[in-house]
Amino acid sequence: MKKIGILGSTGSIGIQALDIIRNDNNFKVSYLSAYSNIDLLIKQTEEFEPQAICIVDNNKINLLHEKLGSKKIEILTGEEGLKELSCRDNIDLMLNALVGYSGMIHTFLAAEQGINIALANKESLVVGGKIITDKIKNTSSKLFPVDSEHSAIWQCLEGENIESVNKLILTGSGGPFRTTNISKFNNITKQEALKHPNWSMGPKITIDSATMMNKGLEVIEAYWLFDIKIDDIDIIVHPQSIIHSMVEFIDGSIKAQLGKPSMTIPIHYALNYPKRIKNDMEKFDFLRSSELTFQKPDLNKFKCIKLAYQALRSGDSYPIVLNVVNDICVEAFLNDKIKFIDITSYIEDALATHNACNINDIDSIFNVINTTKKYIKNRIGNK
Amino acid sequence: MKKIGILGSTGSIGIQALDIIRNDNNFKVSYLSAYSNIDLLIKQTEEFEPQAICIVDNNKINLLHEKLGSKKIEILTGEEGLKELSCRDNIDLMLNALVGYSGMIHTFLAAEQGINIALANKESLVVGGKIITDKIKNTSSKLFPVDSEHSAIWQCLEGENIESVNKLILTGSGGPFRTTNISKFNNITKQEALKHPNWSMGPKITIDSATMMNKGLEVIEAYWLFDIKIDDIDIIVHPQSIIHSMVEFIDGSIKAQLGKPSMTIPIHYALNYPKRIKNDMEKFDFLRSSELTFQKPDLNKFKCIKLAYQALRSGDSYPIVLNVVNDICVEAFLNDKIKFIDITSYIEDALATHNACNINDIDSIFNVINTTKKYIKNRIGNK
Repeated sequence: MKKIGILGSTGSIGIQALDIIRNDNNFKVSYLSAYSNIDLLIKQTEEFEPQAICIVDNNKINLLHEKLGSKKIEILTGEEGLKELSCRDNIDLMLNALVGYSGMIHTFLAAEQGINIALANKESLVVGGKIITDKIKNTSSKLFPVDSEHSAIWQCLEGENIESVNKLILTGSGGPFRTTNISKFNNITKQEALKHPNWSMGPKITIDSATMMNKGLEVIEAYWLFDIKIDDIDIIVHPQSIIHSMVEFIDGSIKAQLGKPSMTIPIHYALNYPKRIKNDMEKFDFLRSSELTFQKPDLNKFKCIKLAYQALRSGDSYPIVLNVVNDICVEAFLNDKIKFIDITSYIEDALATHNACNINDIDSIFNVINTTKKYIKNRIGNK
Repeated sequence: MKKIGILGSTGSIGIQALDIIRNDNNFKVSYLSAYSNIDLLIKQTEEFEPQAICIVDNNKINLLHEKLGSKKIEILTGEEGLKELSCRDNIDLMLNALVGYSGMIHTFLAAEQGINIALANKESLVVGGKIITDKIKNTSSKLFPVDSEHSAIWQCLEGENIESVNKLILTGSGGPFRTTNISKFNNITKQEALKHPNWSMGPKITIDSATMMNKGLEVIEAYWLFDIKIDDIDIIVHPQSIIHSMVEFIDGSIKAQLGKPSMTIPIHYALNYPKRIKNDMEKFDFLRSSELTFQKPDLNKFKCIKLAYQALRSGDSYPIVLNVVNDICVEAFLNDKIKFIDITSYIEDALATHNACNINDIDSIFNVINTTKKYIKNRIGNK
């Protein structure tokens, strides 16, 4: 029986993880958390009977007690409640399916406990890559990537030696604006940006996919996950999203992981690792697939990719700036406060004006986060 | 220093293997053999200075002594000489790059010595799969496939468990007649059949690729190599030959090995296994590649595939009949004695009239080989 805790159980990844767990007797859910979706959290609690749950939004705590008061369950709230959950060491695996950079601290805390972490919160490594990977080297904790790209690379590296790798090739669909002329970028609407051609994901990551910042963040995540040189991480646009990523080895051989564009496979793999467990999802049919094609990413249209490489090369605090500004700008775009193209410009400006700071601990990360938050909220507010 | 013996060093695979060895100080060539290409064998001997060489064609032995008499080298001849080489246990790896079913006995003999075998002679397993794999279970010998398809599967299975495999997917280019209408098959010439669209290989295997018997033989080889059910081996036509084969796992994930259609990678991998060693071959460029497409193989046009599955299902002696008749028919076609479509018809007839025999040892294999040889030579002669 694998005891699993899920942070962000009412989001897209959390829901899909519980779909997998529902059909598998080998899991026991230890805890669940939601930001504010109390109805779904109650439903999940009734079904999976965790020991503890957390609703981050303090305003919902009374309602939660009211609805679940009769059950023998520990009910926590706020960021503090979430932290308490991620410090628990009586589980086998924590799935961090939180959205945005605030998920980083929970990866760090679980790593500190020596807990294995199925990591869907890519911002954890973008913001805290150095301190999290340092922590992991000194504990029994391991990171199991849940992103389809990193899961693909992880699977391709099984039984291989990282010294044999020539480069990692992250594939990306190119998002909804792959074929859109750059002259039209000024008028992109929220509705257009939320229509991903292949993947069904949460709104934040769907916008990241539209700006291709998603790929940029993935480059940074891959850098920390696989301990590889920045120049050895490539991006290829592959519009059909069938090949989920690849590894090129020093002998010229390339391994790829492929299948349907569905998050079920990477979640399933991370939850069950090191075993592969049968599932009844419909298998990918090559005969029904269109052709597979490949293109160079257009770095003029998708400048976020260039900015991410630049931030990673510039050092520790730059990826934090990149990530925080992106998170806040995407939210502002989703709230109709800024335009699609503003996301990129704000990030570019923020990186250009940022003064490098050393990142040695959680506090120094939060200092950069808070300064950057103030800076970007101020800029957006003043627009 | 890895000591390597090569059977069939003057053939396509042998030459490419020596190209790799030439650029790598970690190998020492222990022996070489050729069927009759004495000029190349002498050149290779002078360059690689093996302890022993064998020229199978007895008529060439005097000439060889004349040319190499002054060198301190053991010169063998005939099938007996070849057997003596494959029984040597003072090497680390034997590359069996012989062409046709006569290569089987040498795989068996090396396996008996506990020697690791880089296997380019796929007929070894088609004809002697059972006794060779039985032998290997009881010795320290391992088989390292050199076929690009089986190398791809082998690479995809590294770090994986065979119980996690749902199916093996062998890819095939479809050969030169993939788009040729079946009505024109009656008039296919030798020149047309020898023009493979993607791969540069020896004439026998190029014809096998044109009839797609190559894929059929590979199904049988995969069955023995990977210990998998017949029904779990699929064939997909992939005209670009970039994906060299794939493994679908029970969790729906698929792993593929890909790269340029070049035998260098599988030979290099088998010679260096379990390490990957850097080589300076030009890497595959996805951005320059056309799209990758997939089709169902046309079993009416390429009946050899159906016949191979049928032979494998029918039991031990049927694959031997399939293989022997195919070898002799391909030779007859290359010598302008029979037509392209006759290859398939002769095999079909031979399987239909064959009476199953138990295969328990080398002798029983040779009995079937000899009976089948007599049968098919008689039929072709009587045509």
